[in-house]
Amino acid sequence: MKKRLKIGMIGGGIGGLVGNWHRYAIRLDDKYELVAGCFSSNIENGINSANELGVDLDRNYPDFKTMAQKESQRDDGIDVVSIVTPNHLHASPSIEFLSKNINVICDKPLTASMKDANDLYNAVKKSKAFFFLTHNYSAYPVVREMRKIVQEGQIGKIRLIRGGYLQGWLGSKEEETNKQAEWRTDPERSGVAGCVGDIGSHLMHLAEFVSGAKVKEVAADLSTFVEGRKLDDNASILIRMNNGSRGNLSVSQIATGDENNITLSIYGEDGALHWQQENPNYAKFSKKGELDRIITRGSAIFDQQAQSKLRIPPGHPEAFIEAFAQIYSDVADIIQGSEQANDLLKIVPNIDDGFHIMKFIKACVDSSNNNSIWTEVSKNN
Amino acid sequence: MKKRLKIGMIGGGIGGLVGNWHRYAIRLDDKYELVAGCFSSNIENGINSANELGVDLDRNYPDFKTMAQKESQRDDGIDVVSIVTPNHLHASPSIEFLSKNINVICDKPLTASMKDANDLYNAVKKSKAFFFLTHNYSAYPVVREMRKIVQEGQIGKIRLIRGGYLQGWLGSKEEETNKQAEWRTDPERSGVAGCVGDIGSHLMHLAEFVSGAKVKEVAADLSTFVEGRKLDDNASILIRMNNGSRGNLSVSQIATGDENNITLSIYGEDGALHWQQENPNYAKFSKKGELDRIITRGSAIFDQQAQSKLRIPPGHPEAFIEAFAQIYSDVADIIQGSEQANDLLKIVPNIDDGFHIMKFIKACVDSSNNNSIWTEVSKNN
Amino acid sequence: MKKRLKIGMIGGGIGGLVGNWHRYAIRLDDKYELVAGCFSSNIENGINSANELGVDLDRNYPDFKTMAQKESQRDDGIDVVSIVTPNHLHASPSIEFLSKNINVICDKPLTASMKDANDLYNAVKKSKAFFFLTHNYSAYPVVREMRKIVQEGQIGKIRLIRGGYLQGWLGSKEEETNKQAEWRTDPERSGVAGCVGDIGSHLMHLAEFVSGAKVKEVAADLSTFVEGRKLDDNASILIRMNNGSRGNLSVSQIATGDENNITLSIYGEDGALHWQQENPNYAKFSKKGELDRIITRGSAIFDQQAQSKLRIPPGHPEAFIEAFAQIYSDVADIIQGSEQANDLLKIVPNIDDGFHIMKFIKACVDSSNNNSIWTEVSKNN
Amino acid sequence: MKKRLKIGMIGGGIGGLVGNWHRYAIRLDDKYELVAGCFSSNIENGINSANELGVDLDRNYPDFKTMAQKESQRDDGIDVVSIVTPNHLHASPSIEFLSKNINVICDKPLTASMKDANDLYNAVKKSKAFFFLTHNYSAYPVVREMRKIVQEGQIGKIRLIRGGYLQGWLGSKEEETNKQAEWRTDPERSGVAGCVGDIGSHLMHLAEFVSGAKVKEVAADLSTFVEGRKLDDNASILIRMNNGSRGNLSVSQIATGDENNITLSIYGEDGALHWQQENPNYAKFSKKGELDRIITRGSAIFDQQAQSKLRIPPGHPEAFIEAFAQIYSDVADIIQGSEQANDLLKIVPNIDDGFHIMKFIKACVDSSNNNSIWTEVSKNN
Repeated sequence: MKKRLKIGMIGGGIGGLVGNWHRYAIRLDDKYELVAGCFSSNIENGINSANELGVDLDRNYPDFKTMAQKESQRDDGIDVVSIVTPNHLHASPSIEFLSKNINVICDKPLTASMKDANDLYNAVKKSKAFFFLTHNYSAYPVVREMRKIVQEGQIGKIRLIRGGYLQGWLGSKEEETNKQAEWRTDPERSGVAGCVGDIGSHLMHLAEFVSGAKVKEVAADLSTFVEGRKLDDNASILIRMNNGSRGNLSVSQIATGDENNITLSIYGEDGALHWQQENPNYAKFSKKGELDRIITRGSAIFDQQAQSKLRIPPGHPEAFIEAFAQIYSDVADIIQGSEQANDLLKIVPNIDDGFHIMKFIKACVDSSNNNSIWTEVSKNN
Repeated sequence: MKKRLKIGMIGGGIGGLVGNWHRYAIRLDDKYELVAGCFSSNIENGINSANELGVDLDRNYPDFKTMAQKESQRDDGIDVVSIVTPNHLHASPSIEFLSKNINVICDKPLTASMKDANDLYNAVKKSKAFFFLTHNYSAYPVVREMRKIVQEGQIGKIRLIRGGYLQGWLGSKEEETNKQAEWRTDPERSGVAGCVGDIGSHLMHLAEFVSGAKVKEVAADLSTFVEGRKLDDNASILIRMNNGSRGNLSVSQIATGDENNITLSIYGEDGALHWQQENPNYAKFSKKGELDRIITRGSAIFDQQAQSKLRIPPGHPEAFIEAFAQIYSDVADIIQGSEQANDLLKIVPNIDDGFHIMKFIKACVDSSNNNSIWTEVSKNN
Repeated sequence: MKKRLKIGMIGGGIGGLVGNWHRYAIRLDDKYELVAGCFSSNIENGINSANELGVDLDRNYPDFKTMAQKESQRDDGIDVVSIVTPNHLHASPSIEFLSKNINVICDKPLTASMKDANDLYNAVKKSKAFFFLTHNYSAYPVVREMRKIVQEGQIGKIRLIRGGYLQGWLGSKEEETNKQAEWRTDPERSGVAGCVGDIGSHLMHLAEFVSGAKVKEVAADLSTFVEGRKLDDNASILIRMNNGSRGNLSVSQIATGDENNITLSIYGEDGALHWQQENPNYAKFSKKGELDRIITRGSAIFDQQAQSKLRIPPGHPEAFIEAFAQIYSDVADIIQGSEQANDLLKIVPNIDDGFHIMKFIKACVDSSNNNSIWTEVSKNN
Repeated sequence: MKKRLKIGMIGGGIGGLVGNWHRYAIRLDDKYELVAGCFSSNIENGINSANELGVDLDRNYPDFKTMAQKESQRDDGIDVVSIVTPNHLHASPSIEFLSKNINVICDKPLTASMKDANDLYNAVKKSKAFFFLTHNYSAYPVVREMRKIVQEGQIGKIRLIRGGYLQGWLGSKEEETNKQAEWRTDPERSGVAGCVGDIGSHLMHLAEFVSGAKVKEVAADLSTFVEGRKLDDNASILIRMNNGSRGNLSVSQIATGDENNITLSIYGEDGALHWQQENPNYAKFSKKGELDRIITRGSAIFDQQAQSKLRIPPGHPEAFIEAFAQIYSDVADIIQGSEQANDLLKIVPNIDDGFHIMKFIKACVDSSNNNSIWTEVSKNN
């Protein structure tokens, strides 16, 4: 009988939001079994969550240290832990489980501080276990196809990258009433950046994932439009990439009316690619001197491997949960040593991606604090 | 600890297609546990499927009769069975499980023949168990919102219904190489209709679901463009509804290039609604004398109950699998007697819907065979 | 110095609507000079119109007979007359000017009655002058490109045609207050059909223009939703074409919220084409087994001749007036015997198109009056 | 009889491009008569142009000075001159005609150098004649409606402006073969900026026109991707506006595949507006807590004055030429002292707009030359 990976969860107690997303992703492809957790700092909520989620109460732990120790001693201990706490609580549990050689899947961004990022980076490099980050937008089938098109040189040398990640939900002082808004606007839990860290991190990762280039320098203008808010809620960022291409990013959580408006355009010498997250099963693919084309999940140029990832036929849209689940599915394949493990290791976001994006966030903040001066990303830690 | 419903499956062995979709739907909301099955008429494939799906081999049955009997005798027997076989194999297992008072979720259309439909109809009416049909397109959040808008009278008395369900995958003789195509084009297994039964059934149900009206008469022109094919692969249908509205449907599986192109427009005296399945999180809502509006899953007018169904926030698109899962989720809530059970019974497709759509299919075929003469739906059995 | 054609106009007095459209079209490419007219049956309005339009008062005529006679006797008499009166006043002036061998550009549909259509048809065949019809939607650059793609066999043998022409402006009893609505809903002036004649005529012509096929049979369901209205305001039509393809049309003037929503899809064995009038500079072009492509006015595959027609570069949208002007521009080129005259004669709508569409309108009405029975188009006069 | 304004033209000889656009605009509404010109520095081309355009040869002038003098002395001399030469030839003819109190309509941007801009500015302020600039994108009906919505406070205090103007036609060394590309990439004729001057000027004007705010500071990154090109062909620009709002612009002529891709989003505290030039008859209008709405040319909220500007009904798309013609139409109304003249003076682009945009261009270049340092616009001359 097929073996499912045993997975545990840190954070994600019922009543929250992001924990549910991870669980949808965990369940969809039936490659995991949720068997342990430390779902909440509140004991009662922890017990209720375990009950609701079908986790035995003797594997419902009061703290992540106990959980790491006990699970690592069991014969049937967890293979993987999923960490879905706020940013400032990513590093310590990750380091703990990594030290027991238990694989980690962690929510983005990597950490709240560069110090934590450094510590975690070192812990990953020392551990035998894997560490992955849920930059889920990179797992949409069409996004992966875009990356492949770039890699094959079909759009030529990249010149211009234009990205946007615009939300409107923090347009007023939501932190006073909304738990999700509260920790995201709190420097203690979120880190030095607000929207740049929360969603700019996704956008920058996505742009790098598709383009295959890394951001080298930024000139950023972060601003806080909602009075009394402690972190940025809007940012315009000029970018220069390590392959000579340039571009601009618009990141906002005060973009009234926008829900989760991610857009990405990559222009090369010979072609271009355009994608919108809110209609994620399609991309526009321009080739110089030819008609623009529409990429779908069923695109003729999809290779066999990509096709085999499709859960349902093209035209039957896949969406956010499926892309999120793809990260978990790929991680399972990597851990279980599937044939595609090596290929998957190249695309599933890992510690290097996470660490690099932390430097990007820091560089944006530093640039903005220095009147938008161009700031190198790599030196920024 | 939360009780999950125990579910079994008829058909859906690994290597197939539709069984997977049902299992994605079963898993997503964690309201079911797959514990039994009769996955294949091929014994080896049945065993492999059970192994792959984590079903104990002693609950992997060689035939549905044995399964119905054994499961009904167990204390921990299944609460529900999911039937995902070709159309001609819907009625007999459904009747069997219903006779043991085991709830049934069945793929659409109801049956392959009117005789089967009648038998099944009677069996449902006699049984204490529930019977539901996976007309999954009606479970998209935005589709349900459209239905609500119509019910509230916001678009006034309905006048015109225009629908399309166009696919291109049967444009050549796919039945020679593709298993999915093979049974769908075989009158023995599919019934009297080809594309009208396979996808026209979905479209008609969807149009009725949103409009709240029932089709009364059809004038249909069915055709078979691929030489040697035994069933229709294209149909144009005029419709007259029981509320005085009229319209037209275009149904095709030879619409080259189209993937799963479902569109629906409902025009009333005071407004109109427009939806496309391939970008399912949005609908256009026209009100006479006002600006057209865009409905999203986060629409301000969504009521509390609808909002609570959202698994992820608006802008993070939900799609086919989520809508499919909604049917299973709602069925679980009905079976477990949730507070919303009565409301859900009004929207989850049931035997009456299935029986009515069978008459619609038959009426289309009869009309087309009589040179597209107007044919009453209700008399057609 | 370049010679401009001298043009006169029947109808189109100031305060009206359609006369303006024709004049925009006349002016745009500077190939005509408006020098004479019989703009209104109301003498004062006629004089005011002439003044406003810069027409000498001695070439402002009280009736079209006088105008035809006087203008045909002048050395500098008009080369062309543009007829923009309601349908029932198309035939008599056209016949009059044709009898003087003055070229005619006439608004669609051809006439209000089949008798008029016959008379006009005979008059055209006898005259040395040209007769053209402003089926302007066929003159959009992208529509002409679509026709070319079909002619080149790029989508293969055509199977399915699906069209819609939906407007909402006649959803209530507008005929009581709106002059445009008044004559369009009056059988005396409009003919036997309402929306089928007014806009169904455009849609059928467009479908034939692009597909290169002619409608052979129709089964139509015409209805009148606004109480007391004398002509149809909504129609669903099944069509069978002379090349074996089939399809359906949805035509309505009670489609609440729709402005001028024309859509056309042509599906062939090897590909398909899709166009929407409200965003007319783009079309979708599917080829079996390839990525869908977007045709624009700048499409690489546009031939030299088509490119030379572009007034402004692609991306700078052209629209309704420019397409309307294209008809006038092409007619001028034909009359002046340009190199492309022979090619243009194949695409500019003429008496045969107009006569054929009249038969289509009649067949729709007859079919609907006979409970939607299939009715041959060619026999219908 | 209605009096048409007499108009002359500087530049715009046949074989060129932009001159045609201006002439389409001049003709469309029949408010002008083209009677004089100095169409080309090449005498033969000048004569041919005059002939082709129906201008008497004795009003075809060898140079603009002669033309200004002769026309100002005629009783029937021109009322207006249209200047459609490359940027470096805007100032001198404009100043000449203004000195004769002949009204000027000039192509954008104002001039090639700040010195010319200053001289022209002073000349306008001294002259009794009007001076207008063809920032035509601001004349689309829907764009003007957006401006009105902002002015009415419907989207609240503006926070974020995001704009893009992306073309792909200069992706290779087109200046070697294409006349339009040649002068645009030549600092002598175009000025200090390439794409920022040619199209960035339009985008900045448009953003200011709709938002009602003026750009105060820029931090710009201009680059030249095509080797050997002397001016920028791509720019990313951070902006800060005089009302506290901020934003970013992406301007490019090397955006492979893009035709004339102008997009503008304006986000305020209470709502947002979104527009795309390539489908210009629609805009998205978000209001916090309400459904997004679609603005069309027929929008119910359009006021009477705006409605009266519509040449054809909504749904019959207007486009680039019509917007261009609107500038000419409005200028005619202003010159002839129509009732709306005062209102029109507030929206038709004038010398202040042109001068301000010149400072913006200069500030972008200066900022980019200083490593993207924030640079004040107003001090930049």
